[in-house]
Amino acid sequence: MNLFAETPKPPYYAVIFTSERTEEVEGYSDTSERMINLAKQQDGFLGIEFARENLGITVSYWKDLESIKKWKLNTEHLVAQKNGKAIWYKNYKTRICLVERDYEFK
Amino acid sequence: MNLFAETPKPPYYAVIFTSERTEEVEGYSDTSERMINLAKQQDGFLGIEFARENLGITVSYWKDLESIKKWKLNTEHLVAQKNGKAIWYKNYKTRICLVERDYEFK
Repeated sequence: MNLFAETPKPPYYAVIFTSERTEEVEGYSDTSERMINLAKQQDGFLGIEFARENLGITVSYWKDLESIKKWKLNTEHLVAQKNGKAIWYKNYKTRICLVERDYEFK
Repeated sequence: MNLFAETPKPPYYAVIFTSERTEEVEGYSDTSERMINLAKQQDGFLGIEFARENLGITVSYWKDLESIKKWKLNTEHLVAQKNGKAIWYKNYKTRICLVERDYEFK
């Protein structure tokens, strides 16, 4: 399984979602997994990478701002965002970024 | 301790460094910690966030591209990058991004 997002040549967009969890575990994994699978079905989705220790970092990659906006307003995603604030996240920060350049080592 | 980077109002830059480690642990933590402390002393450094599970994600934030370039070419950092490729990383990907917008929940 490739943990890296196979993104195209820049420019494209990245959404960096940094979060700190509450102690509440119920429903979190299921919703999280469902959101990843749902995101993958959206137009303009390019890939996703994530890791969590004390801080969680999820970076999703998108073709353009329009795709990001549509995903943010997806009905099922809106419910998850609402529950995220009410139940699972102590705090989070979202950053919308234009990826200008990338390089890799294999 | 605040795990979130206290970044200013956009625009600013983010460097997303996604990596997969080798099994070699010797020297990694020390160098990693030293690089974070050294990065913090650089002009234009704004903050850093990281997490590692199977994948490691480190996001550092910078004032502009010039600061990122200077940090990349920092002598001690160059040695760490060389050792990173030779010893500690199986593969990695670096993405240079312009943060256009951000919002948070507290």
